[in-house]
Amino acid sequence: MKYLPQDVAINIDVELFNEYKYSVDQLMELAGLSCATAIAKTYSLEKLNNRSVLVCCGPGNNGGDGLVCARHLKLFGYNCDVFYPKRTDKPLYHNLTHQCVAFKINFLDKLPSKTDVENSYGLIVDALFGFSFKPPIRDDFVPIIDLLRTTITPVASIDIPSGWNVEGEPKEGGIRPEMLISLTAPKLCAKNFSGKYHFLGGRFIPPELEKKYGLDLPKYQGTECVISLK
Amino acid sequence: MKYLPQDVAINIDVELFNEYKYSVDQLMELAGLSCATAIAKTYSLEKLNNRSVLVCCGPGNNGGDGLVCARHLKLFGYNCDVFYPKRTDKPLYHNLTHQCVAFKINFLDKLPSKTDVENSYGLIVDALFGFSFKPPIRDDFVPIIDLLRTTITPVASIDIPSGWNVEGEPKEGGIRPEMLISLTAPKLCAKNFSGKYHFLGGRFIPPELEKKYGLDLPKYQGTECVISLK
Repeated sequence: MKYLPQDVAINIDVELFNEYKYSVDQLMELAGLSCATAIAKTYSLEKLNNRSVLVCCGPGNNGGDGLVCARHLKLFGYNCDVFYPKRTDKPLYHNLTHQCVAFKINFLDKLPSKTDVENSYGLIVDALFGFSFKPPIRDDFVPIIDLLRTTITPVASIDIPSGWNVEGEPKEGGIRPEMLISLTAPKLCAKNFSGKYHFLGGRFIPPELEKKYGLDLPKYQGTECVISLK
Repeated sequence: MKYLPQDVAINIDVELFNEYKYSVDQLMELAGLSCATAIAKTYSLEKLNNRSVLVCCGPGNNGGDGLVCARHLKLFGYNCDVFYPKRTDKPLYHNLTHQCVAFKINFLDKLPSKTDVENSYGLIVDALFGFSFKPPIRDDFVPIIDLLRTTITPVASIDIPSGWNVEGEPKEGGIRPEMLISLTAPKLCAKNFSGKYHFLGGRFIPPELEKKYGLDLPKYQGTECVISLK
């Protein structure tokens, strides 16, 4: 299985939209569904002691995956709150937010304290930054990353542990998620992932594209939309 | 569980788009994925003797669900051919068709004979008409419906056995699919379904909408996107 550097991850993404004519709506729906599925398979409601899930969404596509993930988690029976401080002013993002609100998912006005997070939530979903992130972290996001870095509540990162470069952990030390859900193919930084659970999701890569980039993806079982890698 | 008459099915559909701000791309992706999942769970490659699946797509949303279903079936390892005689001239449909072509799904120029169908295909997916269909069947589609009505190859219908009215089988006798995959909630005609396999798919109904229409849907298990009803 290949681990992708940033330029390859970006090229594959561009090709999915331009050559294969997927819409963002389609792929985000499948990606977010994969994330919710991997999370539900790993963290049962019992394991969370029925506590809620806090989904932290960033301003780009990674945040959109988080919004879709929150909606599917709700359908799977989880209570979710979303923290989405910098909202993207595009129709798709307005609609994804609207759908979450219509599903009675609560949007937090401000970042809860570490103590409040640890009391109220059984899991944090990190949907802040994806593979197009380049350091440094913008000032507004420093407190969230600090929270994710220091809390004892387990963190599940979508595609990339936020604040990491695609190709590895920052020298000064980054967040250490317990779970990583790689989308389409793992990025280079996943080699440094030392958490307990690693899943692959985003089962929508055309076989020709997989061949072209030599992705050598593991085989999904049956109708499953995720594979456990670790 | 409630069986929906046509006006209620239409109202729910309108509400999903207008009130809940779902896009057609999103719901069609989830609906088509449900159909492919229900089919793969019922007709293994072994059961089909590794023969291909013929997906017959109509000009509306039911046809779009069929295109998405074909793509996911291909990802699940099935060979698919698509017969899509009246194509919808909208960007989404062009793109869904393009995706199928990029996945090396073959589009047939003409309807194969009954003998050819029975020799080449292990299953036919009926994605011709959905819940907004009103009889009579347009002349161009009569030969396809006749084929589906008389072939010994099993037929899996998406949402409604094509040619049936939402509320029941036509008096003169309609197709008799072996499988029915109801989407969001079964339509009234599903009460007359006498085939072997009945599934419910389309796990995206907001709880408030389910309550408002008293749908009383059965509970999906875990992260499953379909439920076997029969």
